[in-house]
Amino acid sequence: MRVDIGNALAAEATPGIPRDALDTLDERVAAAHERIERGIEAREHGYAALALPETVDTDEIRAAVEPLSDCETLVTVGIGGSALGAATLCDALSPEFDSVVLDNVDPDETSRVLSELDVERTAMHVVSRSGTTAETLATFLVLREAFERAGVDWTDRTLVTTGEEGNLRALADQHGLPVLDVPSGVPGRFSVLSSVALPAAAMAGADLEALVAGARSESETLSDSLFSCPAYAYGATSYALALRGWRVNAMCPYAESLETFAEWFAQLWAESLGKDGLGQLPTRAVGATDQHSQLQYWRAGPRDTMVTLVRPDERASCPIPETDLEGIGYLGGTDLGTLLDTEFDATEASLAAAGRPTVRVEIDRVDERALGELLYGMEAACVLAGELFDVETFTQPAVEWGKRAAGGLLGGEETTEAARVGEKTRLVVE
Amino acid sequence: MRVDIGNALAAEATPGIPRDALDTLDERVAAAHERIERGIEAREHGYAALALPETVDTDEIRAAVEPLSDCETLVTVGIGGSALGAATLCDALSPEFDSVVLDNVDPDETSRVLSELDVERTAMHVVSRSGTTAETLATFLVLREAFERAGVDWTDRTLVTTGEEGNLRALADQHGLPVLDVPSGVPGRFSVLSSVALPAAAMAGADLEALVAGARSESETLSDSLFSCPAYAYGATSYALALRGWRVNAMCPYAESLETFAEWFAQLWAESLGKDGLGQLPTRAVGATDQHSQLQYWRAGPRDTMVTLVRPDERASCPIPETDLEGIGYLGGTDLGTLLDTEFDATEASLAAAGRPTVRVEIDRVDERALGELLYGMEAACVLAGELFDVETFTQPAVEWGKRAAGGLLGGEETTEAARVGEKTRLVVE
Repeated sequence: MRVDIGNALAAEATPGIPRDALDTLDERVAAAHERIERGIEAREHGYAALALPETVDTDEIRAAVEPLSDCETLVTVGIGGSALGAATLCDALSPEFDSVVLDNVDPDETSRVLSELDVERTAMHVVSRSGTTAETLATFLVLREAFERAGVDWTDRTLVTTGEEGNLRALADQHGLPVLDVPSGVPGRFSVLSSVALPAAAMAGADLEALVAGARSESETLSDSLFSCPAYAYGATSYALALRGWRVNAMCPYAESLETFAEWFAQLWAESLGKDGLGQLPTRAVGATDQHSQLQYWRAGPRDTMVTLVRPDERASCPIPETDLEGIGYLGGTDLGTLLDTEFDATEASLAAAGRPTVRVEIDRVDERALGELLYGMEAACVLAGELFDVETFTQPAVEWGKRAAGGLLGGEETTEAARVGEKTRLVVE
Repeated sequence: MRVDIGNALAAEATPGIPRDALDTLDERVAAAHERIERGIEAREHGYAALALPETVDTDEIRAAVEPLSDCETLVTVGIGGSALGAATLCDALSPEFDSVVLDNVDPDETSRVLSELDVERTAMHVVSRSGTTAETLATFLVLREAFERAGVDWTDRTLVTTGEEGNLRALADQHGLPVLDVPSGVPGRFSVLSSVALPAAAMAGADLEALVAGARSESETLSDSLFSCPAYAYGATSYALALRGWRVNAMCPYAESLETFAEWFAQLWAESLGKDGLGQLPTRAVGATDQHSQLQYWRAGPRDTMVTLVRPDERASCPIPETDLEGIGYLGGTDLGTLLDTEFDATEASLAAAGRPTVRVEIDRVDERALGELLYGMEAACVLAGELFDVETFTQPAVEWGKRAAGGLLGGEETTEAARVGEKTRLVVE
């Protein structure tokens, strides 16, 4: 992973980061790095995620999915960090593999998916750290019934990833299901390189060792200066831009296969940094498509959005045939990739010309190794940004209120939160 | 469409809209409405979009797709407003129909789509208002070659929607292709209820008349007060919140089938309002999934994001089986829809309890009529917000710079913009 922060400097962006401010910030990066290193070594909660390239057992994961290898479809049942990692890996590395992610409790969507599913050829991976996530367990119950109705033994087709306790663990023990442990100290949104998401990648035929090797090589760049560590360069620059008013970070890969990566990033960034009135709002985009959607705002709206432009150096070839169509003859004989790369350059320059900051992130190609670098790099960037913002990177306290409200409403318990739901102020226009 | 702005008022949100400020704003709404009505009646550029329920010819559109009715797959070739409308309609109304949208120039993705396409059974709809959009024409050339290679007469399978002039019009004339006119005065992002997007909906089996009837009924609510017009209530509230610092609008339907609608909305809102340093940044979300991703930021990050919560009153039934799983017995015997609706209520209350504004938008169900209401309502809301911000709602000037740069680089022309690309400031960390 290479990170180019040139267009975030004061020379280009208004306001941008003065070069000497970057040097001052680098002293804080050094201190933060020391903290992070200590956390990694002690496998502290959260920091343990950055040790995954050393601690993950890919043999165990491959062995766990081996009995499911004759299945053509994998349904991942999970939500948030229990689903986005698997979706990111499958969409990037094996878009042709039939990976279905049930990460919502929409009855229309779930019914439709079930009606199209060839249950005879389907495996399911149920993922919940706590083992008590209402959405995940509800969907599991629905899916299990579909297996039973089709006369398929669901216990032969189900892999579970969960923590040491909870309903899912009890269920797995009761039915003798294979279980992978959620790694200790690794929050869901930092768990892509673990038993949470790697089983789906293995089912999809991805090379787990190359993924982990990519992550490991990125981990080896962690050092006490943002000028020698791409991940820290990204995290520190995003933080410094947020301080200067660029409170939104539009993650815009120029590769369709990385569209889900942008969603994964959004969860990582929003849930880790969005607290105490601080943080930076991630938004998801994809180039070149969003040039015809979001670009107008990025370039001419309020000065609040930095754009992260991600691209692979190498792409597949898809030649554009020669044409005598007037005015576009120049396209003929080139390649879609040339067009896409040119639009990348043009958009980057266009934002720079308007004084809007961008950061360029480049990877060699969309493959296991580069994706391992990118995912690990963004996680390390996020942990660094959390240190700089001085927030609790690894918690998500604001999510709890709604959980208590929903639990109260559904479970019939009288909680303060559930009571609040009935007190809504209404001003309805119809 | 019903709009509930109760949670945007000062009684709930901090800062929220004081009730008397809303009354003052309503005087501006009345003036803006007069301007909008005048624009609609005179079919002025942009405003003409709001006349589509009266002017669109659904018979003509159905007749145009009739010769393609034996095709099982429709590939829409277009970008931005030429693609998002079709994708929105197909994903919401006929998720089982095989609609493929090629709205990027990614060689990996395009090659993959082509390799999976049964060309014998495929039709294509090529959409470009100008008839000169580089991305669209490049993709068309690639797709046409795939037809030729398979020995399929592409001229029998191609429908074109374009303006009166340009390459696409010339091509259609040359090969005798059926052509639908882009309606006059309707910008791409406002063209969903026209020959741009309705052909895809017709191919997918949707009821065009019901869609248009829904839009028409929403158009009949346009009036001189936000208190009697749901669309204006939405537009005025979003504007008033943006003024008070809520510069981001997270569009969060609680329905997977409306996920693409959120993308459509994002283009509408970003490109129409994001200019002169003004506007409101739309971001895309989906409930309940994003409760485990974006919610932490919405509730505890900087006070900058209002959340639009959209839900249908009716959903399909997907019962949750009874269970003896400990702790979640309360879920058994209910329905996924009950769970989803409860999470909607809980999230709304959770944000209100934190003083963060939300707007609730309700439709009867996800069907043609309600979608017509919703799409038209959001367009009218956007036009109103444009009047209140006093920006040029129907232009997208900031997109042009990049187009000139890309055109210069690819076409070999020496433009100022192309030259700027080579002058990039670099600070690379690797």
